[in-house]
Amino acid sequence: MSEANASATRITPGNALRPEDIALLDTKPGDAVAQYALCLGDDALILAQRLGWWISRAPELEEDVALANIALDQMGHARSFLTYAGRAWDKTEDDLAYFRREPEFRSVHLVEQPNGDFARTIARQFVVALYQWELYSRLVDSSDPTIAAIAAKAVKEVDYHRDHSIQWILRLALGTDESRTRMVAGLKLTWPYIDELFTDYPLTDVLGDVGVRPSSLREPFDAAVHAVLDEVELQLPAVPGSVGGGRLGRHSEHLGYILAEMQVLAREHPGASW
Amino acid sequence: MSEANASATRITPGNALRPEDIALLDTKPGDAVAQYALCLGDDALILAQRLGWWISRAPELEEDVALANIALDQMGHARSFLTYAGRAWDKTEDDLAYFRREPEFRSVHLVEQPNGDFARTIARQFVVALYQWELYSRLVDSSDPTIAAIAAKAVKEVDYHRDHSIQWILRLALGTDESRTRMVAGLKLTWPYIDELFTDYPLTDVLGDVGVRPSSLREPFDAAVHAVLDEVELQLPAVPGSVGGGRLGRHSEHLGYILAEMQVLAREHPGASW
Repeated sequence: MSEANASATRITPGNALRPEDIALLDTKPGDAVAQYALCLGDDALILAQRLGWWISRAPELEEDVALANIALDQMGHARSFLTYAGRAWDKTEDDLAYFRREPEFRSVHLVEQPNGDFARTIARQFVVALYQWELYSRLVDSSDPTIAAIAAKAVKEVDYHRDHSIQWILRLALGTDESRTRMVAGLKLTWPYIDELFTDYPLTDVLGDVGVRPSSLREPFDAAVHAVLDEVELQLPAVPGSVGGGRLGRHSEHLGYILAEMQVLAREHPGASW
Repeated sequence: MSEANASATRITPGNALRPEDIALLDTKPGDAVAQYALCLGDDALILAQRLGWWISRAPELEEDVALANIALDQMGHARSFLTYAGRAWDKTEDDLAYFRREPEFRSVHLVEQPNGDFARTIARQFVVALYQWELYSRLVDSSDPTIAAIAAKAVKEVDYHRDHSIQWILRLALGTDESRTRMVAGLKLTWPYIDELFTDYPLTDVLGDVGVRPSSLREPFDAAVHAVLDEVELQLPAVPGSVGGGRLGRHSEHLGYILAEMQVLAREHPGASW
């Protein structure tokens, strides 16, 4: 992939909306908008932590770089959403990432799930990328201009993530018996966490045109999933859904460990100014 | 930093020399050139592994992203150098990264050193970036056009790494008493591994205009180091040098652990085709 040769440190010209710019905005989001930005930011942040694990551990150098790139994109989205949310409460992105307790996180259970083997990670990526693409491609019309601007940048990157995961689904499903078996298992382990993505929660009713109603994304998501799975003659796994509750701060047993690793250094040196 | 808002997955237009392009070159390097490419590639590869650890563990989200970006740049350089080296022996970058044993690696001891605290990582980055900048800015004139092309791309990215580390040296040295003490300690832990960077080794004599004589880089490197340390009134640590020997395959006790983590997945599934 040619992005392996792009400098990851290159400066973007022009129209990008950086977290630093968001921190300087004149407008502050109201509490509901900030809570919504937390939901979006936490999903991206926790996924980035999970994907970061693959760095130096993927089965190919090229894939190592690809997963790291996706993790960094998600980290960028998280920084923008958390910076914007923090403006409502005079908090920075770092305050929100490092000094919230587990019940204050708003991420869905899906992004907290273990990486498992490569096929399971790809199954999770497939679902997240298709979901985020449907979401962000509508959020570009959000009545909140900052949310719309963050989504406009994110959707272009998620479009690549979608393509990456679909290519791997096809490759694994059509590879060897072993790779197909693992792909099926990866989808089965992932599927219990899908319903939560499309479950409306109290905030949804308050947001109006700022947000997108999760339940409205189910149909286009299902259609996109079917288009890919039909191509390789895979069935949707018939598995019961998990209880969910991430948007309300009720998390799976995995989040605590993720937060411990992510937060330890910042908490050991509060203010980060040795 | 604005790169946080750049897509890490963006496709580079135009003139980039990708590992995939290198794999298709008509020319094969001779054995000496390939050995030299291994030295350059292994330094970058092992450093990338070390830096990757910081992902999800840095004290600020912005810094998390910055170190991850530097790791990915180094991974990109490693892929190019290893792909080119592999053409001499009909091996891929993955063969060389995942299926060589420790004594076959050619990296210097410096890049194998533990991350330590953030100041120690920055001290290592400072040395590596200044060294690599002096090296690559001369390798652009290598008589081997592929080495020259890889260096021409790498030097632009290393120029950013240099700036990043210098800014942190200044910030930590001029911060609090604690941060200055840690910066001094970080430099002291790093300095024993400097001499090896500038020690000529047998290959140097064979390479001629293909490579750059390590000893010729010492003077400009020292001048660049002094310019920064003088600005914050820090002395060069007076510490004895380590034994070195990385270019001959004699490594510190750390490399084995790094390789174990990096190679386990590829070795569990040789051929990477489940």
